[in-house]
Amino acid sequence: MTEKHIKLGLFGFGCVGQGLYDILNHSQGLKADIEKICVKDHAKKRKIDAKYFTYDKEDILNRKDLDVIVELIDNSQDAYEIVSRALNNGVSVVTANKKMLAENFEALYQLQEKNNVALIYEGSAGGSIPIIRNLEEYYDNELLSSIRGLLNGSCNYILTRMELENMDYGKALGMAQECGFAESDPWLDVAGYDTMYKLILLTVHSFGIILKPEQVLTLGIQNISFDDITYAKEKGLRIKLIATAHKVGDKFRVYALPHFVNKESDLYNVLYENNGVEVEGAYSCKQTFVGKGAGSHPTGSAVLSDISALTYHYKYGYKKLKKLRQQHKGNFDSGKLLDVDFDIKVYIRFADKNDLKGIEIVAVEEEFKSAKTNYIVATVKFNSLFDLKGKQDSKLFVCVV
Amino acid sequence: MTEKHIKLGLFGFGCVGQGLYDILNHSQGLKADIEKICVKDHAKKRKIDAKYFTYDKEDILNRKDLDVIVELIDNSQDAYEIVSRALNNGVSVVTANKKMLAENFEALYQLQEKNNVALIYEGSAGGSIPIIRNLEEYYDNELLSSIRGLLNGSCNYILTRMELENMDYGKALGMAQECGFAESDPWLDVAGYDTMYKLILLTVHSFGIILKPEQVLTLGIQNISFDDITYAKEKGLRIKLIATAHKVGDKFRVYALPHFVNKESDLYNVLYENNGVEVEGAYSCKQTFVGKGAGSHPTGSAVLSDISALTYHYKYGYKKLKKLRQQHKGNFDSGKLLDVDFDIKVYIRFADKNDLKGIEIVAVEEEFKSAKTNYIVATVKFNSLFDLKGKQDSKLFVCVV
Repeated sequence: MTEKHIKLGLFGFGCVGQGLYDILNHSQGLKADIEKICVKDHAKKRKIDAKYFTYDKEDILNRKDLDVIVELIDNSQDAYEIVSRALNNGVSVVTANKKMLAENFEALYQLQEKNNVALIYEGSAGGSIPIIRNLEEYYDNELLSSIRGLLNGSCNYILTRMELENMDYGKALGMAQECGFAESDPWLDVAGYDTMYKLILLTVHSFGIILKPEQVLTLGIQNISFDDITYAKEKGLRIKLIATAHKVGDKFRVYALPHFVNKESDLYNVLYENNGVEVEGAYSCKQTFVGKGAGSHPTGSAVLSDISALTYHYKYGYKKLKKLRQQHKGNFDSGKLLDVDFDIKVYIRFADKNDLKGIEIVAVEEEFKSAKTNYIVATVKFNSLFDLKGKQDSKLFVCVV
Repeated sequence: MTEKHIKLGLFGFGCVGQGLYDILNHSQGLKADIEKICVKDHAKKRKIDAKYFTYDKEDILNRKDLDVIVELIDNSQDAYEIVSRALNNGVSVVTANKKMLAENFEALYQLQEKNNVALIYEGSAGGSIPIIRNLEEYYDNELLSSIRGLLNGSCNYILTRMELENMDYGKALGMAQECGFAESDPWLDVAGYDTMYKLILLTVHSFGIILKPEQVLTLGIQNISFDDITYAKEKGLRIKLIATAHKVGDKFRVYALPHFVNKESDLYNVLYENNGVEVEGAYSCKQTFVGKGAGSHPTGSAVLSDISALTYHYKYGYKKLKKLRQQHKGNFDSGKLLDVDFDIKVYIRFADKNDLKGIEIVAVEEEFKSAKTNYIVATVKFNSLFDLKGKQDSKLFVCVV
């Protein structure tokens, strides 16, 4: 552990960047200074002295005196370029950019190995909850069987306000944006993409497999209505957007879908912008972690913790990933470990029965029709739900029973 | 991170020791072999080959080829001798012995510093929950304001069975012992001592202060009756034995007492042998960790995780403790940071009003008398409750309102 002052180059000064700035100013232990902040928008008024800012990324990337690059921008392509250049320069990186990480995981893993440099990203999943480092360090030799969680603060916030306060979907989404919980493109939240990116990261650290975004099914809450909330309430259930990766035989089922959860579940009481993660292992049994999943300070505090870890040269070991690849002797395709060929029981609300075309229904258990709304509860082929992923014109709301 | 096989010397082969043995046999990642196990009881039949066992501690302590000593015995004095000798020999130690740690913390801290050797003890608090390492690493620069938790699996198990299954106290305690949740001396569980020892450890890692057992107030659940359970139920509350350390101004209030908790609390739904810990920080806000708090495999898995951490030379940094001592320039008395001079509102059930003598009552809010039971709800001087600590002949049940 070094006691030296560390010098940071920061990309992005939005919600999380400003949160980090506040926390660094109040942290008593960590001696870290932000040397330069690269931002995009010349016009935007900034809360701190102009001397900190640059609009040219080279002003940070070309400096030789920085210890850590902290990447907190929105655009995942730009972020990838910044992060890869920093890693190739041998500079450690902290990021909270789950989209960039999930889209480029294999390449970023290789860059870390090639340059023997750290890329750490606790703030990218679970907000303030220290889940990645726990999976990496604490559950490093534990035979995990499952991880599941509420990973998107905005969706949970919207669902909570709809259920507990009868607030309408659009208004709840607007408030999530106002509070700084939502991504700048809220579609990433409500259609489940943000949850899916985070799930991809947790799957790497839980089981050692790197999945690509197109391999992971996700459906969001964008089509939810009060009819669905009422249906759940009547049965003593709540609707939660749950990401899950669990082992079935030698394979893994990995998806992010709305689920009905009952009162017995630890996730039932995780409300508003909180996130919750359940980890199940053969010996440690079930562990649940709950904490703020979004917001400037909570995410900033996860980023701070990563910066602090770099002061004592912390680096993810990726032990599970390495072990799996060793077993498969280089000839390894994570996709082959993914199970997408199974039946799953879902509730589907629809306006027009034609919208169900394309979903392979194995058996219908319930069917409800009325002037106002229709739904079925049916067992369907999991694989056939992929067509609905990211489909902007779909009106279906699908929820795992 | 080394890939070498590590050699363990194990003291104790009770509940946790056997759990560790099972887990080590099934762990795929960690290459660790138990070389020798020191046990006390010659007569006891052992599940594994006799060649592993010795009855002489010197057979382990004098060996030069062991990488790690794992101390899992009951007797805290013997344990202290074993652990200090190992540390002085420069051998890293893993222990789950909260009593030994809490009773000797200052000396054990000094031994680690003097010999530059690791003593780690995740299994000693929170069972399978990775709380100590998170406090040490993840919340290392966070301004924590409070930590509170259910830290004793047996008490929580007893309280849950009494409340949900109307099981009588004695029977529930017997079942906790049968399940291997209870300490071999159950008084340590039910009178709150086990909780207090764990609280002392969490206080070190949360705030950097080392308290002595005699400085920390604890009252247990040994005098609870169905009248108390019914009182709580009628008000929609549950009784939980809660350990808390929180900052008030520049000082800390640290105690372990039964509390009434309401449905809004994350700890309300932590049932049976589960433990739960809430950590509050200025920026990360509130985080809750829930998991199995007792039992052979859950605690064994925490011990395994510590052994694994030693393979990459992990050691607690005690950053908060060091910082505090630096600030006070050697002239440091943790006790001076402890606040025991405040008023606290409690429910006290009693048979004979004379039993309340010694408790300084500031104001009585409620008083209930009947042929069967009596109680008061009153604000009392916190300090005056110390007389009840560990008092075997007291019949009072005290619960924070």
